[in-house]
Amino acid sequence: MTSTRAIGLDVGGTKIAGGVIDGDGQILHRLQIPSPTDEGTDTTLAALLELVDSLRAVHPEVSSIGVGAAGMITWPSGRILTAPNNAYRDLPLQELLAERTGLPAVVENDANAAAWAEAKVGAGVGCRNLIAVTVGTGVGGGLILDGALYRGQNGIGAEIGHLVINPSGNIKCGCGSVGCLEAHGSGTALGRRGRETAATDPDGLLATLAGGADRVTGETVFTAAQQGDPTARGLFDELGYWLGAGLASLVNVFDPQAIIISGGLVATRDYLYPPTNASFREHVFAGPHRTLPPIIPAQLGAESGLVGAALLAMERQHQTVLAA
Amino acid sequence: MTSTRAIGLDVGGTKIAGGVIDGDGQILHRLQIPSPTDEGTDTTLAALLELVDSLRAVHPEVSSIGVGAAGMITWPSGRILTAPNNAYRDLPLQELLAERTGLPAVVENDANAAAWAEAKVGAGVGCRNLIAVTVGTGVGGGLILDGALYRGQNGIGAEIGHLVINPSGNIKCGCGSVGCLEAHGSGTALGRRGRETAATDPDGLLATLAGGADRVTGETVFTAAQQGDPTARGLFDELGYWLGAGLASLVNVFDPQAIIISGGLVATRDYLYPPTNASFREHVFAGPHRTLPPIIPAQLGAESGLVGAALLAMERQHQTVLAA
Repeated sequence: MTSTRAIGLDVGGTKIAGGVIDGDGQILHRLQIPSPTDEGTDTTLAALLELVDSLRAVHPEVSSIGVGAAGMITWPSGRILTAPNNAYRDLPLQELLAERTGLPAVVENDANAAAWAEAKVGAGVGCRNLIAVTVGTGVGGGLILDGALYRGQNGIGAEIGHLVINPSGNIKCGCGSVGCLEAHGSGTALGRRGRETAATDPDGLLATLAGGADRVTGETVFTAAQQGDPTARGLFDELGYWLGAGLASLVNVFDPQAIIISGGLVATRDYLYPPTNASFREHVFAGPHRTLPPIIPAQLGAESGLVGAALLAMERQHQTVLAA
Repeated sequence: MTSTRAIGLDVGGTKIAGGVIDGDGQILHRLQIPSPTDEGTDTTLAALLELVDSLRAVHPEVSSIGVGAAGMITWPSGRILTAPNNAYRDLPLQELLAERTGLPAVVENDANAAAWAEAKVGAGVGCRNLIAVTVGTGVGGGLILDGALYRGQNGIGAEIGHLVINPSGNIKCGCGSVGCLEAHGSGTALGRRGRETAATDPDGLLATLAGGADRVTGETVFTAAQQGDPTARGLFDELGYWLGAGLASLVNVFDPQAIIISGGLVATRDYLYPPTNASFREHVFAGPHRTLPPIIPAQLGAESGLVGAALLAMERQHQTVLAA
C-alpha cells in the first residue's frame, strides 16, 4: 500500500477530536477541542475547519478527511439528518468540508466508524463478518457483513440497540418503542433497575451508597456489586440475561465470526460477562452443533471513531482512484 | 443477456420438483417425483440424476444445475450437513451432481433460493436490500443485503425464525432454545395456543370444531376466526403481535426496502395482517421519521425454490466466466 494519510475527526457532544492517521491506523498527531457551546451549523463547521488546518500544518501530505459523528447520517452523501447531542439538523457536512478544504471527505455514523476501525486494525482483523456492540449509556454498534460495513438501504441499518427483545415487558425505550435491547441491556437500564430495587429496600446498600433510592445510577450498582452486595449482583445477572439474549438473536441472524464488545460497561465485566455468556448460550441457535463466535473486547478504545473515520476516507479515495 | 438456461431442483421431504428455467425465471418445462421413501444418499442422488436426465432430454441446451434443499448447507461448497425431513447427513451433493452430470452445480438452502427468486424475478425486483419471510409451520426466510444473498460466515446465517423475541416467556422452540420468533409467530404456535385456549373452554367453538381441545390445530383456529369466533380472532391478534415485533426487530437491524411475506399463513391474512401491522409500527425504530418498508406478498408461490436455485446456478456460472 501507499503511505496514504488521512485526517480523522470524531464529533461528540462535549468534544471534537482530530488526528492524522496512517494506513495502519496509527495516530501520528492528535488534537482535541471542546464542542462549540453555540451548537449552530456555522460554529461547528468553523471548529472542524480549524482542526483540519492545524493538522494539515503539521502533516501537509494528508489527502482525505473522514468524520465520525453521532446521529442519523445518509450514505454515501454524508449528510447529518439528526444528531442527538448537537443542535444542528440536516447538515450536508461532507459536501461543505470537501468544498472548504479541497480534500475528498467522508462523513459516517460514529458507531459505524468505530466498528470499521476494529475490523480493519483492531480486534477483528481478518474477519469478514463481525458484530461490534457498544454497551454504555445506550447500546449501539456496527455490522461488518461479507467484508463491508452494512448500512441498510437508508443508512439507518445496524440499530443493534433497537433489536426488539422483550416487547411484552412494557419497558419504554428512549427511541419511543417498547422492549428494545437498549431498554434492557444498557447502563441506563441498570440505573433504572437499581432505583426500582432500592425503592423497595430504602435501608439497603444501593440506597445508602447513593444517598437515596432515587439517586441510584448504574455506577452505584457497580460499586455495590464490587462490595459483594447480592442485590446488585442480581441486577447484573438480569442485565447480562437480556444482553446475552440480544447477542444470541444477532448471531442467529448474522452468523458472524466474532462479537466485539466495547463501551463503558466493559469495566463491569466481572459481574456482567458470566450471566451474559450463560444467556447467550441458552438462546443461540443450534449451539451444540456449531462453533460459537467468540465475544472479545475491542482493542482501540476511545480512539476507534477517529481511526475508523480516517480509514473509511482512505478506502473511498482508493476506490475512487480504481474507478477513475 | 444470453439465453442461458439452467435446471432447478427443489428437494422436499415429500416430493422433488425439477424444471428448466430461463434467464427471466420462466419455467419452460417441469417434472415432479415423490421423494424416495428409502431416504438414503444413493437413492436421493439417483432420483435427482433421473430428473436431470429427463429434463436434459427435452432441453439439451441447459448449462448448469441449481438445487434448493431444506437443511443446513455449506456455501459455496454445497454440502448438506443436516436435512430435517430427509435421512441423509453430510452429503456433498454439489460435488456429486457436478461429477455425475458434467454440468456445474450449485446447492443452496431452499429458503435462500426462494428469497433469491423473489429478489430477481418476483416481488422484490429492483431492491438491493430485502427481507423474505416465510410464515407457515415454522418461520424461515432469506436476506438480500447490498444486492447479494447473505449467508453468514458458515452458511447458517439468516435464521430469521430464531430471532429471540421473548426470552423470558418460557416458550420452548423446536430448535431447543427459548423465546424464538418461530415459537411465537408460526402456524405451530397458533395451534399450540389454540389447544391451550380450548382446554380452558371445552364447549367453545375451537374444541367443538376440532372434536376435542387437544385436537385443535392452526387450521382450526383459522376456521373459527372465519366464523367470527372472538377467541380465535384474539389468537390471531396474539400471533400478529409477535410477528409484527419480529419484523420490526429485523427492520431495525437491516433497514431493508421491503419485506416479502410468503408461506401457509398468508391465507389467513384478513386476521393476521392487521395486528401484525399494528405491532410492526409500534416496535419499529424511528417510525414517524422514516419511510417504512412495505410488507408485500411473494409473487412466485411454491415454485420460488426451483426458480431461485436455477437463477443462482446461472449467476455462479456467469461469475465463473467473468473470472476466467
